[in-house]
Amino acid sequence: MDFSSFVTSLATSFVVFLVLMLAFAWLQRRPGNAVIYYPSRILRGLDPLEGRKATRNPFAWIREAVSASEADIIAAAGVDAAVYLVFLSSVLAILVLSGIVLLPVLLPVAATVLTRPSSSDSNSEGGFENLDKLTMGHVNKGSPRLWAFLLGVYWVSFATYYVLWKAYRHVSNLRAGATSSEEVRLEEFAILVRDIPATASGQSIKDQVESYFRLLHPETFYKSMVVTDNKEADKIWAEIEGYKKKLARAEAVYAETKTTGKPNGRRPTNRLGFLGLAGEEVDTIEHCNQKLKELVPKLEAEQSITLREKQQQAAIVFFNSKLAAASAAQTIHSQKVDTWTVMEAPEPRQLIWANLPKKFYERQIRASVIYGIVFLTVVFYMIPITFVSGFTTVENLKKYLSFTKKIVDQPAIKTVLEAYLPQLALIIFLALLPGFLMFLSKQEGIPSESHAARAASGKYFYFIVFNVFLGVTIGGALIDSLKTIVNHPSEIVTLLGTSLPKSATFFLTFVALKFFIGYGLELSRIVPLIIFHIKRRFLCKTEAEVREAWAPGDFGYATRIPIDMLIITIVLCYSVIAPIIIPFGVMYFGLGWLIARNQALKVYVPRYESYGRMWPHMYLRIIAALIVYQVSTFGYIGLRKFVYAPLLIPAIVSSFIFAYVCRKHFYLAFVHTPLEVVVASQGKKEIPNMEAIYTAYIPQCLINDKFVEDGDMFEDAHSQSLRTTSF
Amino acid sequence: MDFSSFVTSLATSFVVFLVLMLAFAWLQRRPGNAVIYYPSRILRGLDPLEGRKATRNPFAWIREAVSASEADIIAAAGVDAAVYLVFLSSVLAILVLSGIVLLPVLLPVAATVLTRPSSSDSNSEGGFENLDKLTMGHVNKGSPRLWAFLLGVYWVSFATYYVLWKAYRHVSNLRAGATSSEEVRLEEFAILVRDIPATASGQSIKDQVESYFRLLHPETFYKSMVVTDNKEADKIWAEIEGYKKKLARAEAVYAETKTTGKPNGRRPTNRLGFLGLAGEEVDTIEHCNQKLKELVPKLEAEQSITLREKQQQAAIVFFNSKLAAASAAQTIHSQKVDTWTVMEAPEPRQLIWANLPKKFYERQIRASVIYGIVFLTVVFYMIPITFVSGFTTVENLKKYLSFTKKIVDQPAIKTVLEAYLPQLALIIFLALLPGFLMFLSKQEGIPSESHAARAASGKYFYFIVFNVFLGVTIGGALIDSLKTIVNHPSEIVTLLGTSLPKSATFFLTFVALKFFIGYGLELSRIVPLIIFHIKRRFLCKTEAEVREAWAPGDFGYATRIPIDMLIITIVLCYSVIAPIIIPFGVMYFGLGWLIARNQALKVYVPRYESYGRMWPHMYLRIIAALIVYQVSTFGYIGLRKFVYAPLLIPAIVSSFIFAYVCRKHFYLAFVHTPLEVVVASQGKKEIPNMEAIYTAYIPQCLINDKFVEDGDMFEDAHSQSLRTTSF
Repeated sequence: MDFSSFVTSLATSFVVFLVLMLAFAWLQRRPGNAVIYYPSRILRGLDPLEGRKATRNPFAWIREAVSASEADIIAAAGVDAAVYLVFLSSVLAILVLSGIVLLPVLLPVAATVLTRPSSSDSNSEGGFENLDKLTMGHVNKGSPRLWAFLLGVYWVSFATYYVLWKAYRHVSNLRAGATSSEEVRLEEFAILVRDIPATASGQSIKDQVESYFRLLHPETFYKSMVVTDNKEADKIWAEIEGYKKKLARAEAVYAETKTTGKPNGRRPTNRLGFLGLAGEEVDTIEHCNQKLKELVPKLEAEQSITLREKQQQAAIVFFNSKLAAASAAQTIHSQKVDTWTVMEAPEPRQLIWANLPKKFYERQIRASVIYGIVFLTVVFYMIPITFVSGFTTVENLKKYLSFTKKIVDQPAIKTVLEAYLPQLALIIFLALLPGFLMFLSKQEGIPSESHAARAASGKYFYFIVFNVFLGVTIGGALIDSLKTIVNHPSEIVTLLGTSLPKSATFFLTFVALKFFIGYGLELSRIVPLIIFHIKRRFLCKTEAEVREAWAPGDFGYATRIPIDMLIITIVLCYSVIAPIIIPFGVMYFGLGWLIARNQALKVYVPRYESYGRMWPHMYLRIIAALIVYQVSTFGYIGLRKFVYAPLLIPAIVSSFIFAYVCRKHFYLAFVHTPLEVVVASQGKKEIPNMEAIYTAYIPQCLINDKFVEDGDMFEDAHSQSLRTTSF
Repeated sequence: MDFSSFVTSLATSFVVFLVLMLAFAWLQRRPGNAVIYYPSRILRGLDPLEGRKATRNPFAWIREAVSASEADIIAAAGVDAAVYLVFLSSVLAILVLSGIVLLPVLLPVAATVLTRPSSSDSNSEGGFENLDKLTMGHVNKGSPRLWAFLLGVYWVSFATYYVLWKAYRHVSNLRAGATSSEEVRLEEFAILVRDIPATASGQSIKDQVESYFRLLHPETFYKSMVVTDNKEADKIWAEIEGYKKKLARAEAVYAETKTTGKPNGRRPTNRLGFLGLAGEEVDTIEHCNQKLKELVPKLEAEQSITLREKQQQAAIVFFNSKLAAASAAQTIHSQKVDTWTVMEAPEPRQLIWANLPKKFYERQIRASVIYGIVFLTVVFYMIPITFVSGFTTVENLKKYLSFTKKIVDQPAIKTVLEAYLPQLALIIFLALLPGFLMFLSKQEGIPSESHAARAASGKYFYFIVFNVFLGVTIGGALIDSLKTIVNHPSEIVTLLGTSLPKSATFFLTFVALKFFIGYGLELSRIVPLIIFHIKRRFLCKTEAEVREAWAPGDFGYATRIPIDMLIITIVLCYSVIAPIIIPFGVMYFGLGWLIARNQALKVYVPRYESYGRMWPHMYLRIIAALIVYQVSTFGYIGLRKFVYAPLLIPAIVSSFIFAYVCRKHFYLAFVHTPLEVVVASQGKKEIPNMEAIYTAYIPQCLINDKFVEDGDMFEDAHSQSLRTTSF
């Protein structure tokens, strides 16, 4: 890539960004779009455009995003979003701190070298001299100027330690503050018990759990809820919900046709066969009503069977005090430590019920198998895709789907197809990958959604670092390189050192593209806007359907964080070799921070709250990126025949020590709730309604309308087995 | 070593063993020796020779040792001894199970090979054909007979898994049973709190601890005892004890001279100067009395200063219920997880007070530094010793200590000196090593004696495995081999495979020597017997001094277990290559088990009780030995060009899986007390005297006679600082 095409690419991205920003400024003020640009505010019952009419400034959102306090963010989008913002601002701080020293020092040091080094040291593959002058590749081998770059590594490292330490402390306090707030948190009174051993014959699991915990926690045990196999009940419940929706829709259609007085005022019908296209035609409203009448008693019957006979080897146990629950969740209960394993209960909304009864060793085996699959996917994913690409050619399309022949043979369409058809497999694969990784993570037997998101995020991070970062730098010969690395581990340093500089300009463009196009789309929400308008126009009949069409998602940490991590890794790795990348990194995280604040305040609605459990995961990957950076720069400075390069080894060691100290100082408080924090939240509140907490954990498909009248029904059905077995 | 010298060496050892056994049979029945052969029974107030006079059978001790139940062992020597016996019998069971299959199968398979392989494959370095015929080296390369050896590895592996699993379960139950017995265990009501953060100004640490725990455990907190810096008080206390002993001795001497009516009936005197040889001569009794009169008030003053002003950042916190203490010891207290760290309190008698206030990161740094020192000691210990040996020659002796010239010049003495003088440094080093390793382990900041013993045992195990096992097998070129291993890790398999067979006969002799001579000395207790008789005759004047002269030690696990471990490693590694070693191993552990039972019942008195905490440490090293065995046999079978050798890899993997499953199933219950176990012990007992538990933890040097009358004195002095600071 030569300099002019680099500038062109930057300029194009910037123009697209500007257009998207203007579109945003215009679109967001139209009231009909409020549900797309302010869904979070609407759902919280606030006026979406509050105080906005007064100002016509299209950049008012920036002022609002900047001026919002952390408490506002937490109120709007939860602690997780606040922690994500801390992450963005920390990385921003690291890059700004690095930039204000590295840019004014290293650029002149590199640019003022008079004699050009031999062309083989050129930093980019084409001739790209203008930027090349500003990189370390421009400094002569063995020159004392390399001291500046070596010290630059130390400066970046210490800036990272300083910022990360402060950020970790801040997040730790955020977490502690949030968990000791006024609100009653259901999960604070519960623990999750798994790996319950087989019961003695004639004893129900419920009975066993109750007697066990009543014995070990005589004064604080409240109640237990045994996890049941809800597959059947879930199915019936989903069917009922489906018919309810269908009924509402049919009624809305019928009402519409009646009120508009159109001639076709007949009752809506549908067919029972395949996809509603074939089979007997029935009156939808009658049919749904009839089905519902059948299914509701069926559900009730299934519910009582489930509660009585489908008890599984896991339970949620409730305590009448937070302190007791927090202690119990951290204490070994059984002498056989792989039975009766306990942990703090996740929120009810993020429980993955199907995973709870999975056995201890089953979980271990699943995790190992899945890590094997992920490894194979990360390393060899190109093989099946290349294979499929061989088939998805224009020739094969004509051959196997002969009816497309006429369309395909048109020159314009043919050109486009020839360009994109072979990539199709790759595009589809990359689009499905996050979902696939999330599916794999859930298969590990992880009990909560937030934990599954962390696991999926980790896997996705491996994938993109390996395939984008290493793939681009080391190039096509990745598998060969891998072989070298396995046989001679010490060569990875040299390999990174030689390969990194060549890809500097590629990554400059990559980062710029990511923030201009990526953030432009994110802020303007063009895609959700178009989808919503299409849905509302052609599909939605009832109020509920419209609401569903604009329902905002959450931040999607599982895919968002790995991409941010990739950018950090790239920017850190080039920070000393080609410091010009730092401003791009600053732009990425600066803009990212601003837009994420806007989205947190106005758009996204969290699906769950993990109180910053994601932070240690993010922090550890920043440290990992820092170590990759130190090692590769060590390799690169070493290659430039600088005898003092080994002076970088203490920096690498200190990164490991820093990671260790952080872990010891903070980490466990993210896994368990410290008693200090529990006590801090205790005195302030009244004693909560324990029955309400218990009820909140009942899975949707087992909720019976009758329970509203008689709160003990669930309890009764649940423990009926005890009575039936003992009499 | 040829065959005849091998047999001679065995025969000699056996004769020595027989002589020692006969000596034991004769000596143990003389009443004057009872304190040497039955000290444990005497200390427990039992008749040493109970029921023995009836039988004159010199082997009665064997019947007694075999017929004693595990409960007897626990009553006599504690759970730790019982667990050590389980360890011995488990290894015995592994070897017996291996032997009954491997001996009748592998020996004929090897011996019936007709063609001799080339002499380079010979199993021992000299010609040693008789034994060589019975080893794997005798089987032709690539012969299908190697299947028998390969399957032999699997048999040994599965025998080990089976025995270890049963043993682990047994030990786990032993531990649970002992901790839930009738006896009140002081440490069950206490936890050890370390890393207490700096206090707010004007607040004493005691005050801070009490308010912190009263807040977090409002209903169960009883009292706290802050650790103090007792160095000064300890010194004065030791001085007082010294004078007390001296006084008792002088009085005994004086009484003796008076009653015997000997002419020199004058009062005993001593000199105050260097070693009691120079300086002013004083009347001992008067001098001691005077000193005691001075020191006792000084101690009292120091005690109150210590309690008030020398509080340290650690404390022992007492709870009024076991369940509360067990929960508290497993729960994170502070949001900063490296402060207020908690653990179950060790027994008062095994607390290492000086280590308790050591800070979290200080402990980590100390541990790293000490592991560095141990690594250097293990790998390079020969360097300083060779250096010192260069000086300790007969020539130098004559040169620097010229007065020895005449003695040294006598031919007989000269020969002996020339033989042993160069070894002197090595002998002294090896004698001091266990003490040195124990000292190092304590420097790590470990809070209890039993834990320090485990740490020292681990270090000693590294030392002997590296220097004896690897040193002998791989030979002098150890450092070179090490370099090879670091550069090409996969070559260790080949290296072990080639080197092991050469040393087979050396290790046969080594094991035989260890059990004939080692156990002969152990059982006959010749050395303690001689020392005791010399001391009683020439040194002891008072009853207390005699008692001190025969006071039995404990098992000394820190040095005993690593040696057993070395034998296991050796026997397992040769079990398939040269199965003839198995009977030797069976002898070692069979005899060891018998003698250890005898010593547990009659001799050794435990210094502390850790309820089998040593077991996971021993078990893990057996697994490690098994893996070394599997890997080296894999290398050896591979070298014999057997294409199915890789079939051994699943065996290696299954060892890792077995270790993992054991760890998950049992290990945590050895670190923390499961609530189940605590509850099992609770109902049975009355509420204990909490004040007595608290008092038991007061360090000796801070006990004041006045406390007997007024139990609150300690408490008062301890918290006086609170009052002095608040008013």
